[in-house]
Amino acid sequence: MNFHVMTLFPEMIENAMAESITGRAIKAGHISLNAVNIRDYSENKHNRVDDYPYGGGAGMVMQAGPVYRCYKDIIRKIESETSPKVIYLSPQGKVFNQDMAAEYAKEENLIFLCGHYEGIDERVLEEIVTDYVSIGDYVLTGGELPALVMMDTISRLVPGVLNNDVSAQTESFTDNLLEYPQYTRPEEWNGKKVPPVLLSGNHKKLAEWYREQSVIRTAMRRPDMIAKAELTDEEKLLAKNVMNSVTD
Amino acid sequence: MNFHVMTLFPEMIENAMAESITGRAIKAGHISLNAVNIRDYSENKHNRVDDYPYGGGAGMVMQAGPVYRCYKDIIRKIESETSPKVIYLSPQGKVFNQDMAAEYAKEENLIFLCGHYEGIDERVLEEIVTDYVSIGDYVLTGGELPALVMMDTISRLVPGVLNNDVSAQTESFTDNLLEYPQYTRPEEWNGKKVPPVLLSGNHKKLAEWYREQSVIRTAMRRPDMIAKAELTDEEKLLAKNVMNSVTD
Repeated sequence: MNFHVMTLFPEMIENAMAESITGRAIKAGHISLNAVNIRDYSENKHNRVDDYPYGGGAGMVMQAGPVYRCYKDIIRKIESETSPKVIYLSPQGKVFNQDMAAEYAKEENLIFLCGHYEGIDERVLEEIVTDYVSIGDYVLTGGELPALVMMDTISRLVPGVLNNDVSAQTESFTDNLLEYPQYTRPEEWNGKKVPPVLLSGNHKKLAEWYREQSVIRTAMRRPDMIAKAELTDEEKLLAKNVMNSVTD
Repeated sequence: MNFHVMTLFPEMIENAMAESITGRAIKAGHISLNAVNIRDYSENKHNRVDDYPYGGGAGMVMQAGPVYRCYKDIIRKIESETSPKVIYLSPQGKVFNQDMAAEYAKEENLIFLCGHYEGIDERVLEEIVTDYVSIGDYVLTGGELPALVMMDTISRLVPGVLNNDVSAQTESFTDNLLEYPQYTRPEEWNGKKVPPVLLSGNHKKLAEWYREQSVIRTAMRRPDMIAKAELTDEEKLLAKNVMNSVTD
């Protein structure tokens, strides 16, 4: 998986991706990162890439030319026979989720376009963007953090990136249920003890407890997800009781 | 607004917040950032803060002790009479949106707790966390990017942070409508001309065009938002026609 990021802040992208799991994945060659500064493609002597919006209004708009030349240069260097997807990070896009991440994780190259200021000239978006994606219903100062969020989520699904494949599978969302609570040493902390079943060594009881806790949590915190989860009749009754007690 | 972040990667938080609009807001004193390394509160000679989960399973769990001592130290330094909100970034939380950002922007202090590995010992979460927040239905390697996303969104709503107050108000979501397309110089690019109304200087026509484009875009890209928008009868008909043409 090769990530290409068109941005005015390449260092922010590089610094954040160098940490933790994504940093190790880059070193190990499971993913690669190519953060390209759109400003390098300005033809203005002051390296400007923005200008006032036609029709007036607050803020500045990024010009089509530098973005387009930057894109063309990335494409030329990729030398791929198929055109890679170009994702424009925008609150107007389709809202990102784990299923979309799994689809993107199958690609060989992904290009992210990060806007800043009031946006980018519509004409270059029409020309190059294949996917408009939003990470949620809130407004950010630029596309850099959303691109980082998407790359982090997608990286975890690229084979080899997580040490333990089990880890990606047992986590939240895979069954439309939230994860059960976690406990580690010490056995008693601040007067609170670890639930005894976790110390029992009884694998059948443990599995039952994990599942029950997941159902209870999902019903409490994300009742909207319960309808999508595959539950036994007994679990459905449990979820219903939890939801009723919360709204009481 | 004072942001306090409990994390294993304080530099990642500091680097990302130092860029662009949040960086300027910190320099100008509109917001402050205090990124605290949880590892500094380890009592282990190797500075370890995680251990195996009780009951088994993949991955490591962050221990209650270091997190709790880190929290206590932040609280002590804040010297506030009211307890600040403690936000735990988790895919299990309430999904973040612009309305929540506006509420958080009214606080004087906000504490973010960033998990890593498989999560944090449940007992310390019960003890200190006031708000469980998710930035969307996808799984990340840690809470740092979500904390950055929240701080960026909230910062924009703190008075003085954006140069132009108009900017925060006219953007996406404030009317449950997406923003109209933006154009800047040159007038013709790659054979594509700017829509003539933007060059007309007719303010009434311009306002009508902006509104119409917003309705069309929202109907095309986010039909789920149309029901929440306040539209005239004429606009409702326009939205309906657009939605029908998309699904045809």
